[in-house]
Amino acid sequence: LRPAQGTRDQNPARTALRDRLLAAVVACFKRHGAAAIDTPVLELRETLLGKYGEEGKLIYELQDQGGELLALRYDLTVPFARYLAMNKITNMKRYHIAKVYRRDNPAMTRGRYREFYQCDFDIAGQFDPMIPDAECLKIVHEVLSDLQLGDFLIKVNDRRILNGVFAVCGIPDSKFLPTCSTVDKLDKMPWEEVRTEMIGERGLLPEAADRIGEYVRLHGGLDLVERLLQDPRLSQNKLAKEGLGDLKLLFEYLALFGIAGEISFDLSLARGLDYYTGVIFEAVLLQPENDHVGEPVGVGSVAGGGRYDGLVGMFDPKGRKVPCVGVSIGIERIFSILEQRVEASKEKIRPTETQVLVATPQKNLVAARLKLISELWNAGVKAEMLYKKDPKLLKQLQYCEDTGIPLAAIVGEQELKDGVVKLRDVATREEVRM
Amino acid sequence: LRPAQGTRDQNPARTALRDRLLAAVVACFKRHGAAAIDTPVLELRETLLGKYGEEGKLIYELQDQGGELLALRYDLTVPFARYLAMNKITNMKRYHIAKVYRRDNPAMTRGRYREFYQCDFDIAGQFDPMIPDAECLKIVHEVLSDLQLGDFLIKVNDRRILNGVFAVCGIPDSKFLPTCSTVDKLDKMPWEEVRTEMIGERGLLPEAADRIGEYVRLHGGLDLVERLLQDPRLSQNKLAKEGLGDLKLLFEYLALFGIAGEISFDLSLARGLDYYTGVIFEAVLLQPENDHVGEPVGVGSVAGGGRYDGLVGMFDPKGRKVPCVGVSIGIERIFSILEQRVEASKEKIRPTETQVLVATPQKNLVAARLKLISELWNAGVKAEMLYKKDPKLLKQLQYCEDTGIPLAAIVGEQELKDGVVKLRDVATREEVRM
Repeated sequence: LRPAQGTRDQNPARTALRDRLLAAVVACFKRHGAAAIDTPVLELRETLLGKYGEEGKLIYELQDQGGELLALRYDLTVPFARYLAMNKITNMKRYHIAKVYRRDNPAMTRGRYREFYQCDFDIAGQFDPMIPDAECLKIVHEVLSDLQLGDFLIKVNDRRILNGVFAVCGIPDSKFLPTCSTVDKLDKMPWEEVRTEMIGERGLLPEAADRIGEYVRLHGGLDLVERLLQDPRLSQNKLAKEGLGDLKLLFEYLALFGIAGEISFDLSLARGLDYYTGVIFEAVLLQPENDHVGEPVGVGSVAGGGRYDGLVGMFDPKGRKVPCVGVSIGIERIFSILEQRVEASKEKIRPTETQVLVATPQKNLVAARLKLISELWNAGVKAEMLYKKDPKLLKQLQYCEDTGIPLAAIVGEQELKDGVVKLRDVATREEVRM
Repeated sequence: LRPAQGTRDQNPARTALRDRLLAAVVACFKRHGAAAIDTPVLELRETLLGKYGEEGKLIYELQDQGGELLALRYDLTVPFARYLAMNKITNMKRYHIAKVYRRDNPAMTRGRYREFYQCDFDIAGQFDPMIPDAECLKIVHEVLSDLQLGDFLIKVNDRRILNGVFAVCGIPDSKFLPTCSTVDKLDKMPWEEVRTEMIGERGLLPEAADRIGEYVRLHGGLDLVERLLQDPRLSQNKLAKEGLGDLKLLFEYLALFGIAGEISFDLSLARGLDYYTGVIFEAVLLQPENDHVGEPVGVGSVAGGGRYDGLVGMFDPKGRKVPCVGVSIGIERIFSILEQRVEASKEKIRPTETQVLVATPQKNLVAARLKLISELWNAGVKAEMLYKKDPKLLKQLQYCEDTGIPLAAIVGEQELKDGVVKLRDVATREEVRM
């Protein structure tokens, strides 16, 4: 007896913690003026197929039970693009928090599941360069700061710069995307292995790989952007120049937001999905070695996103494009970290919010309890009672202590006669009649 | 280009309305001390199969892509029972609000979808009779009152009474469940047609059907319960007597809650699902004929539930039972009604909560706007700005009016020089410098 592999039940304490987390994310998204939308978990298979590159093989497909061929959504971005194209919307700032599905190898301790939440914020529309892009980075910064996750680093890069790098290193267009996927592994494996994959699996020439290696191991800030703008080879490449020019503007805006110092221009950042067309970014937590509590949590990136100007056009019969940029907060990984922290701190999360337990000290008073609790509910008070006709007072008070209910409203024979209720503070044992 | 059949996208206005609705339901569930849990959308097929009776043929199954055979959850009750059995929990009050999936014939105008929300509240545990059951009915009453849906009626019955009726009418045990399904159609078709189905499809003798007909067309209150307790045939039946005795107690408790008048003991209420074992109930809205605004909304039941004492035991290797009673609020149907009402009233639902638009009256001030908006976000203020470097002031104010943003924070050359911001009330056009 168990849930499906790679999925999990959330017990009350975990659900309460997760709700607290999601509330912080929603607050940030609303602070930035986003409206919520919802799209179905089920999509037509043809809507999803061919949108994700290599990763698309992990899509869950439904059985053909007559009717349509369906699949479970793989992310919230492609359904959003379908929604925009279908409704001919050219301008929208939306957020969407919901579960997505991937037939991936689950690694539950690291917060990798087959069913997991994504928290997406996206800005669609034809706007002046880098203003929406900068806001997405600001949002990542706000969420990670609000959740007090410790130090973090936000990496940015631009697909156009990567493409420029590949071009000046002599890689044919057709190998850009697979080379991208390989470069993206640089945060998990050393350059030598990445180089081997480029040559062995991707079929690049060793010299070309070495030339790429010189670029993709660079990282820095505005200074690096400016240095590369002077790079004799890159500065000749139209795409790279565009990307570098936009990154320069982006860093100016990030400085105005006061967060440029926490953003690193990192040429190894490539991101796996095919649909990115411009700026891309990813946030990683910086955990000091000795901060591990209990099992070490190897968290990778906790947020990521980028610009995808071509996706909506793939759904439009006339190919009309709607430029988009968006960010997805990796709430499951953040949740894993916070859960471990809560466990280590022995903080007890109360999964209910009950304010009052309605109790009786004598037998045969269930009617009095039902009447009182009904009045409390009608007045909007969060109230519980034990589902026994004649529970012992001690048991009722014990229930308050076990579940953290702060007050007991006690109605006994004397109280009934006097038309009052005795209110008891469970912690201090103080009582007042009212 | 479209979503899957029987599913729909929720645009910002609808999502805002739905969130408002769900917040009211959650508030009620929390008021009654329930903790939230979450279970996966994907379940092992074997977990769901054989739990729903005839309706189970509508379960969505996933393709076999290697690994496990999975299906989409059909309701939130069976996963809850699996959760209780798996974790050996014998005592719990939980709520769960999430989407469920049925390959049913969609009827979107009546709020019938293939993907839809359920809002479930359940009490599991061995408790004194009818106290949790009465609370479930109180919750239905509170939610429908809170949402101001107009008059409604809550019908109750008891599976044991129905079984008793079938027994004293001479129906064999094996035909109880199919006869139940047929009786359940009495709210949608006249007795004559139900009778025909009983005889034709279910193979009952005409005399037996007629005898059943005498019972299932009865409805009333405590008086009817007491009359049936005196019924010469029913009072001889152990199950019926138990059920009637409990209903009597239930009505006493409902009277203490002050809601007995809105509850009708209705012997035609049967409910389709196999797992009910005791009290069952259903709420229907009473819409006066001439209250139809726009398209008439033919809503059926908007809440339902009952006692299912055997379900958890089906998952326990030793068959250990955990008695349960629960209620499910039919939020989609309620949503359809409220949506029509909002449309008719021309009320404009604001899908965002932005308080301030940061605006500039002159060109070349994008830096000033970015700096100010960043300070506002950091201070927790919900703020937006247009994603243009040099938008016209009129366009910025127009955006406020279109989206309902009440304030504009204007920073121009003069304000920058004076180190102030001009705050403008969009509706009254009043301005203050601060």
